[in-house]
Amino acid sequence: MSRTVFVNGEFLPEEEAKVSIFDRGFLMADAVYEVTTVLEGKLIAFDGHMVRLERSLSELGMDKPEWMDSLLDIHKKLVEENSLENGMIYLQVSRGVADRDFAYPAEGTPTSLVLFTQAKNPLANPMYETGARVITVPDQRWGRRDIKTTQLLYPSMAKMMAKAEGVDDAWMEEEGFINEGTSNNTWIVTKDGKLVTRHLSNSILHGITRKAVLRCAELLQMEVEERPYTKEEAANASEAFFTSASAFVCPVVEINGNTIGEGKPGPVVSQLRDIYLEESMKEAV
Amino acid sequence: MSRTVFVNGEFLPEEEAKVSIFDRGFLMADAVYEVTTVLEGKLIAFDGHMVRLERSLSELGMDKPEWMDSLLDIHKKLVEENSLENGMIYLQVSRGVADRDFAYPAEGTPTSLVLFTQAKNPLANPMYETGARVITVPDQRWGRRDIKTTQLLYPSMAKMMAKAEGVDDAWMEEEGFINEGTSNNTWIVTKDGKLVTRHLSNSILHGITRKAVLRCAELLQMEVEERPYTKEEAANASEAFFTSASAFVCPVVEINGNTIGEGKPGPVVSQLRDIYLEESMKEAV
Repeated sequence: MSRTVFVNGEFLPEEEAKVSIFDRGFLMADAVYEVTTVLEGKLIAFDGHMVRLERSLSELGMDKPEWMDSLLDIHKKLVEENSLENGMIYLQVSRGVADRDFAYPAEGTPTSLVLFTQAKNPLANPMYETGARVITVPDQRWGRRDIKTTQLLYPSMAKMMAKAEGVDDAWMEEEGFINEGTSNNTWIVTKDGKLVTRHLSNSILHGITRKAVLRCAELLQMEVEERPYTKEEAANASEAFFTSASAFVCPVVEINGNTIGEGKPGPVVSQLRDIYLEESMKEAV
Repeated sequence: MSRTVFVNGEFLPEEEAKVSIFDRGFLMADAVYEVTTVLEGKLIAFDGHMVRLERSLSELGMDKPEWMDSLLDIHKKLVEENSLENGMIYLQVSRGVADRDFAYPAEGTPTSLVLFTQAKNPLANPMYETGARVITVPDQRWGRRDIKTTQLLYPSMAKMMAKAEGVDDAWMEEEGFINEGTSNNTWIVTKDGKLVTRHLSNSILHGITRKAVLRCAELLQMEVEERPYTKEEAANASEAFFTSASAFVCPVVEINGNTIGEGKPGPVVSQLRDIYLEESMKEAV
C-alpha cells in the first residue's frame, strides 16, 4: 500500500511526491531535517524536535516554511492517513527552488517542506537483546554537526564501512576522542559507575534523546560527566550505549573487536531505557 | 522561455523536471556533479569532466547511470535545444531512489541522472577588468573535497559571508594554509615570479581547469610550485587568481582588505587566461 506523504502543502501518494530538480536540497544539500518517533500512535518529544528545527533554520538563515504553525497537525494527519502505530516521521525543509547558484536565492523565495512516514516498531530492536557492535572511523564530516543538515553522505559511508566489517555502526573519532555514532549520540558507563557522554559543541548533534536521557540520569541520581572520551576508555567501560530518536537507548557490547564489560547489555542501559520510555510516553502527543 | 533539461532519460521543459522526494540526492546529499562550460556552442574540457565524474562515482561506490555512454550526445542535444551559445551544463548523478536509510540501497537500484543548462557568457566577466576581492574563512567542509559531491552548504554559506563583507568570494583556510575558494582553485604569483597553487590531496577539488592551467604554465615555461601557502603569502604576492571551469583564470586583487600587488589584474593572469582559452578551444567539442 502506498504511503501518503506531505509535499509543500499537499498530501499525496508517495509515487507522486516530487520536488523540482532546482530545489536547493537536491542540488546543494541546503536543507535541514528532523525525525520524530511514533510509538503507539503518539509523537515522542515533538516539541524538542520542533525547537531544534527552528534552531537549525535560524543557524542557516533559512526562512520557516509556510506551514510552520501547522506542523503538529501535519504530523498527526500523516499518522492517521498511514495508520502509523509505530515508526518515524521524517521532515525536511530546504531553502527552496531557484536557478543554481552558490549565493542564496532572492529573499522571499519560499522554503520547501517535505514529510513522510516510515513504519517500524522501535521496541522490536534485536540489538536490545544482543547489543550493538561498533567500529571507530575518522570523523570526516563538516564542522557544524550541531546543525541537522542533509549532508549525510559521510555518515552513510561510515554505516557501509561498519556493514563491510560485519558490525552494526561506526563511531566517529576525531583527535583521539569519540564524537558520536553515524546517527546517534554515544555514551559509556565507567567501571566506577559514572555516565559519560561527549559535551555539546559544534562537533556533535545536540540530540533530543541525549537531553532526555540526561534528565533520566538525574532522576535516577546517576553521576554524569559530559566530556570527551577515547575509544580505549570505551573499550574499558563497564557498559556502553547510544541514544537516538528511533533507537531510544541501545546497548553497545563491542568496539573495534574489544568486548565491552560482560559483552552483553548491562543493567544501566536497560534501566535508562525503561525510564526514558516511561517519561517520554507521559509527554507524547 | 523555458529550458529543456534532462531527467532520467527524458528531455523535459524545466517546469516538469522533478525527482522523487526519496532520491538520495535530496535526502542525503548522496550525489556527485560536474559543470562543463560551453563557449561558442562548444564544450570545454568535456573529457576531463567525464573522467572526474567516473572517479567521483568510483570513490563512492556509486553505479554509473544507464546513460553514461550517451553523455556527450545528451550535452550536445541540450546545447542545441536551448540554443546555448555561452554558458554551462550542470550534470548530477545520485545514488537513486530508495526508502530513507543510512545504508546504501539494494544493489541494482538505478542511479539518477539530471542535466540542465545555464546561459551566461563567461568571457563577459567584469572581474577580468576589476579583479576579485576575497576574504578568508575557516574551511569547515568535510574531509573528502577531492570528490565532487553536492554537499555544498558550507561553500554556499562562505559565499554569503563574502557577500556580507561586500567582496566576491571566500578562500578556505585550514591549519594556517589556503585550500581553495568556494568553487575554484586558488593561485598566487610570488614576487620572484613563481606560480604557486596548493598540491592535490583530499583537501581540495582536483580542478580540471587547474590541471589545464598547469599545462599552460609549462608551455609558457613558468616556474610552478604545488604546495601549501598562507594568507600572508597571498597578501604579499605580486598577483593572485583563481581557476574554475566557468571563470577560467580570474584575477584576485585583494585578500582580507590587503591589496595584492598593484591592486589590479597583472600580466601573468591575463597571459595564462589567453593561452588557456586558446588551448581549450582547440580541443573543444
